[in-house]
Amino acid sequence: MGFFGATMPPTTLAARSSFPALLLLRRARSSANRSRGALPRFHSPSLPSSKGMVVRIQGDEFWHMTRVLRLGVDDRVELFNGTGGLVEGSIQRIDKTGSEIVALEDTKTITPQGVQWHVFAAFGTLKGGRADWLIEKCTELGASSVTPLLTERSHTIGGNRVDRLQRVIFAAVKQCQRLHEMTLNPPMNISSFLPIVAQSKLSFLAAAEATPLFHVLPNLGVEDNGVLIVGPEGDFTEEEVKAMKEAGAIPVGLGPRRLRVETATISLLSALMLWSDAQNAETQ
Amino acid sequence: MGFFGATMPPTTLAARSSFPALLLLRRARSSANRSRGALPRFHSPSLPSSKGMVVRIQGDEFWHMTRVLRLGVDDRVELFNGTGGLVEGSIQRIDKTGSEIVALEDTKTITPQGVQWHVFAAFGTLKGGRADWLIEKCTELGASSVTPLLTERSHTIGGNRVDRLQRVIFAAVKQCQRLHEMTLNPPMNISSFLPIVAQSKLSFLAAAEATPLFHVLPNLGVEDNGVLIVGPEGDFTEEEVKAMKEAGAIPVGLGPRRLRVETATISLLSALMLWSDAQNAETQ
Repeated sequence: MGFFGATMPPTTLAARSSFPALLLLRRARSSANRSRGALPRFHSPSLPSSKGMVVRIQGDEFWHMTRVLRLGVDDRVELFNGTGGLVEGSIQRIDKTGSEIVALEDTKTITPQGVQWHVFAAFGTLKGGRADWLIEKCTELGASSVTPLLTERSHTIGGNRVDRLQRVIFAAVKQCQRLHEMTLNPPMNISSFLPIVAQSKLSFLAAAEATPLFHVLPNLGVEDNGVLIVGPEGDFTEEEVKAMKEAGAIPVGLGPRRLRVETATISLLSALMLWSDAQNAETQ
Repeated sequence: MGFFGATMPPTTLAARSSFPALLLLRRARSSANRSRGALPRFHSPSLPSSKGMVVRIQGDEFWHMTRVLRLGVDDRVELFNGTGGLVEGSIQRIDKTGSEIVALEDTKTITPQGVQWHVFAAFGTLKGGRADWLIEKCTELGASSVTPLLTERSHTIGGNRVDRLQRVIFAAVKQCQRLHEMTLNPPMNISSFLPIVAQSKLSFLAAAEATPLFHVLPNLGVEDNGVLIVGPEGDFTEEEVKAMKEAGAIPVGLGPRRLRVETATISLLSALMLWSDAQNAETQ
């Protein structure tokens, strides 16, 4: 099974963001929920296992449910746990510190849909919130995992950065309501990374002078998993590029423009997500 | 000529960012320059008009040239002015406050290459630096212009925000060294926007339930100009969508995911840029 078959780690509740920041996220969620007409969705680490079972919602999610959306007893909601679990329920009881949700059905397990994109990017030395932005956008766009690459020209990443990024992912998962959390892997150097490239049938390496991405894509089949590779500010060394190409990475050009690490990553990820959406969807 | 034929406004030098922030940008530029082997490129509002003429470089660009890249007399450089002018020169003289560059050729005027993408997004009410990110990334990705849309659910944008965004554009143009500045247009409401949609042959409206973008694209021809339309956090109203569709906007889906305004904009722009790169490039 290897890298791509790894089980998603259970949701870990890291330090929560403060209310004001979360309210900002909430405003976006609540209006999106109202305008789309879908059931409002809330995160809970544990879900009722079957119809009729009850789970308690407290903290930020309770605040959002009762103070922002102003839901009440008998209102219907959806609960998700970040590892594929999803269940429709209704509010049975509300007290000062929490609400009780009764499941209206057995909890479903939704498997991830579409191509699972795994991002490997050398963002360890980015400053000024740019790594946060990269991680938040990868989460919104549905990347399956992100792994910081350690390369000759970007060979560090701070430990407290990794903790912080885990919190960014958790907040973004709740805000965009994706059913599966995005995995943040430990940092990896190129030599450890090469076997993953070799194992992947679709590995794209962002490279300045390479064939445009959309000349490469139509010639390839659709796979379950794909890999994106983005180098650091100073770029990969020639040796690193050579090693990855020999392991099977396909160089793809992102055009005649000078893109920052996070911009190259999100552009390439966006293009691949949107392209694979169309491959998967029925032709209309 | 209308909207798409408008001349680029001349470069305006708004308040410069402080040295430390600029140094951050510079590090990215300098290592990118060194790794690619191209001549280092510097911004100058005025360029020598013909071979042999001299222009003086001062301030931040002079700092970067002499203190960061440590260039000296006789080193060759490129100068650009942000409105398509480009000239190769060499350093003739360096003193305490500036350097003199002599043109080695007549100044070239480069016309914009490829499809010119015009972004219309309702980002006026975004908080927390998100509008800055949107503008910076649009600049890096080569969008021709950005216009804030005023809609029913996002009907304001602060005046000081517009000034700030102009500075963000200027810094990003220098950092990514694009030859033409990105135009930031005054805010526009939907009714003023409809004639622009009607005039455009390629207007894409990001819409939740629409046909996937890459089902729509292959059926369209390549144009000189295109329009991207992204609604606010609370989405466009049904009436707004109807009016834009009647004016010729093509709804395109960005997948089964809940994207923030800036994420939807950058994803759609990235996919369109990369797709039109491949249309323009010779098949390899």
